[in-house]
Amino acid sequence: MGTFMLIFIGTSSVVIAKGDVLTIALAFGLSITVSAYAFGGISGGHFNPAVTTAMWINKRVNAVEAITYIIAQFLGATVAAGIVKACVASLGLSTASLGQTDFPKIGAGMAFFVEALATFLFLMIILSVTSKKFGDSRFAGIAIGVALALLIIFALNLTGASLNPARSFGPVIFAGGSALSHLWLYILAPEVGAVLAAFGAKYLLGSEED
Amino acid sequence: MGTFMLIFIGTSSVVIAKGDVLTIALAFGLSITVSAYAFGGISGGHFNPAVTTAMWINKRVNAVEAITYIIAQFLGATVAAGIVKACVASLGLSTASLGQTDFPKIGAGMAFFVEALATFLFLMIILSVTSKKFGDSRFAGIAIGVALALLIIFALNLTGASLNPARSFGPVIFAGGSALSHLWLYILAPEVGAVLAAFGAKYLLGSEED
Amino acid sequence: MGTFMLIFIGTSSVVIAKGDVLTIALAFGLSITVSAYAFGGISGGHFNPAVTTAMWINKRVNAVEAITYIIAQFLGATVAAGIVKACVASLGLSTASLGQTDFPKIGAGMAFFVEALATFLFLMIILSVTSKKFGDSRFAGIAIGVALALLIIFALNLTGASLNPARSFGPVIFAGGSALSHLWLYILAPEVGAVLAAFGAKYLLGSEED
Amino acid sequence: MGTFMLIFIGTSSVVIAKGDVLTIALAFGLSITVSAYAFGGISGGHFNPAVTTAMWINKRVNAVEAITYIIAQFLGATVAAGIVKACVASLGLSTASLGQTDFPKIGAGMAFFVEALATFLFLMIILSVTSKKFGDSRFAGIAIGVALALLIIFALNLTGASLNPARSFGPVIFAGGSALSHLWLYILAPEVGAVLAAFGAKYLLGSEED
Repeated sequence: MGTFMLIFIGTSSVVIAKGDVLTIALAFGLSITVSAYAFGGISGGHFNPAVTTAMWINKRVNAVEAITYIIAQFLGATVAAGIVKACVASLGLSTASLGQTDFPKIGAGMAFFVEALATFLFLMIILSVTSKKFGDSRFAGIAIGVALALLIIFALNLTGASLNPARSFGPVIFAGGSALSHLWLYILAPEVGAVLAAFGAKYLLGSEED
Repeated sequence: MGTFMLIFIGTSSVVIAKGDVLTIALAFGLSITVSAYAFGGISGGHFNPAVTTAMWINKRVNAVEAITYIIAQFLGATVAAGIVKACVASLGLSTASLGQTDFPKIGAGMAFFVEALATFLFLMIILSVTSKKFGDSRFAGIAIGVALALLIIFALNLTGASLNPARSFGPVIFAGGSALSHLWLYILAPEVGAVLAAFGAKYLLGSEED
Repeated sequence: MGTFMLIFIGTSSVVIAKGDVLTIALAFGLSITVSAYAFGGISGGHFNPAVTTAMWINKRVNAVEAITYIIAQFLGATVAAGIVKACVASLGLSTASLGQTDFPKIGAGMAFFVEALATFLFLMIILSVTSKKFGDSRFAGIAIGVALALLIIFALNLTGASLNPARSFGPVIFAGGSALSHLWLYILAPEVGAVLAAFGAKYLLGSEED
Repeated sequence: MGTFMLIFIGTSSVVIAKGDVLTIALAFGLSITVSAYAFGGISGGHFNPAVTTAMWINKRVNAVEAITYIIAQFLGATVAAGIVKACVASLGLSTASLGQTDFPKIGAGMAFFVEALATFLFLMIILSVTSKKFGDSRFAGIAIGVALALLIIFALNLTGASLNPARSFGPVIFAGGSALSHLWLYILAPEVGAVLAAFGAKYLLGSEED
């Protein structure tokens, strides 16, 4: 469960590296790929509450597992963000910028639409490549990581490209400010996208078993 | 069929991210890789009218399938471009630039040659790696995606590197201008390249069955 | 054994190429992937004294093998750094900068923590993906290389992202200066991380056999 | 045989895209990966006279095959460079710069050493990953492509990173100048590296059959 820490190390590190959009997208996306290979066998590869929600709706995990995973995800994200904050502080940089997600340039409605749409597409891909139809979890790890990288390229300049409630939660706890008051959107919108994708995979793609 | 939407989200997003040539090339190329893994089993991985045309000539799909795919591709591209336009507008940017393809620096003859050549090479690779000789569709997805990325690096500064009539159609419907008056070239040239590649694969590579 | 040379060619070359953070991270990370594919069968893929230490603790190699590998690693790193120095000198550049690792911006305690943490995470991933549970050494090569690239993105601006005593040893022998006086940290911290990961993999992940 | 054209399109295109070092390295490296997947079954994946020489010495191809491949490689490179020249001219750019390889900053001895060393390492990797010991030609394609990308990152600022007589031959025929007078070095040095690697693989790695 503590595995979620890795993702956040990989991703929040972007604050320190000050990478361009490709670096940021690859850092987030490939962290999932690596974590899936390394820890997928232990926790089933649940690193995102929205993913866990969709898996729960489609009965791939039960309620107890889902809630345990989600608590572990928020904990892991918080620990990771705390470490990133300590690193940023040790560099003498402002800790107001910790990789939290916000939407300074667009309205809340548009931001909600972007996060929900991106999470919907992300989960349609995840549910399809991890379905029994596909069958090779190793290529699934690569496909999911690259898919996240691509969706981040799309959404980064719009909403910061969260697609993941825990990913938004961790840094904002330490950074505060405007991003904290928008946290509800980054929790709600991905979950809406995930619920729609769960039904979409069941009824449109037919990638779910009964 | 609606799967073509993903590609366009991935690609047109480049307008928003303002990536450099490598970011753009990878965004287009890897979108195909991910879509092939996620939706290849459903629609056979047809995301490009030129690819569908070549597959049709070599009898991998029949006329009804080919026409259905092509209509779905143009529809998906148009929906994707509409969403990108809404995002661009919400950022307060000009909607005159939506990732449409044009060739401001070179002549129409050269542009036609570049698009036809790049699509020809792209389809020679696709037809070879998806032939029964090769046999592993998962590596094919990676090879096709990387091939598109490489050909985009070659053609981006010349013609915008379409290689795909639907990819040019979607954005230009919303962007208009000079790119609209050149749309015929981006529909015709890739199809010419695709037809040549279909015969090339049959008679030169021998990668087609009867 | 001389295989370690390749890594250092790949990595130290960054001094000559003056790459950005993504280029550097990929150069280091993918060097391991390539070396693992090319020479993994010969030396078991030991290119890092910290990795060898963890493998020794968990009885994957015996003491004689471990010491032989570690000596070969330091030798390979030194030869590679010597060649890089000659190349840098031939370009008329200062040989004071040879890709050695140092931490000019943060304190020694923080630097120790960052190197130990990054090496700990790196080895948890290595020990998990190379365990019998995982079983496919080819995907392991990719996962390990990408994991190193991601951790370098995290740590590059903090400590130079060594994670490898031999990687720090080679260049500093030729470059000297402040980095030489900090060499102890780059030898000790990764080894501490490796020892913790060796026990972590045994007791937390259960990825080690008896 | 005409397959070598693809590599040169991918690579020489860098002149048009004006990519940074990572873009150039990936364009060259991944072109080989894609070509190996697409055309490897037809010509055995020989896209480089130095590779063909080493394969010939180790009796993986016979003299007639080797000479046919090498002629096809020089022809393919020349056609590719001609097309790139036409594209560059159509953009109104100077055709004095066509991606030809030269070493303006270092001496001829150092340049010879760098090209021979890089080609030696490149071929040690190729001969190892394509040996019967390794056995999976698909991962070999990826490993070889990434290895070339890494060696290009190392050598690009020193010698232009040819590692391939045909790759240097094509553009210089059209570009002329100082690079033409240095062409002998880019033909001789990679061949020296290849011959050394052929014997190295036989006697050091033991990756060759009798």
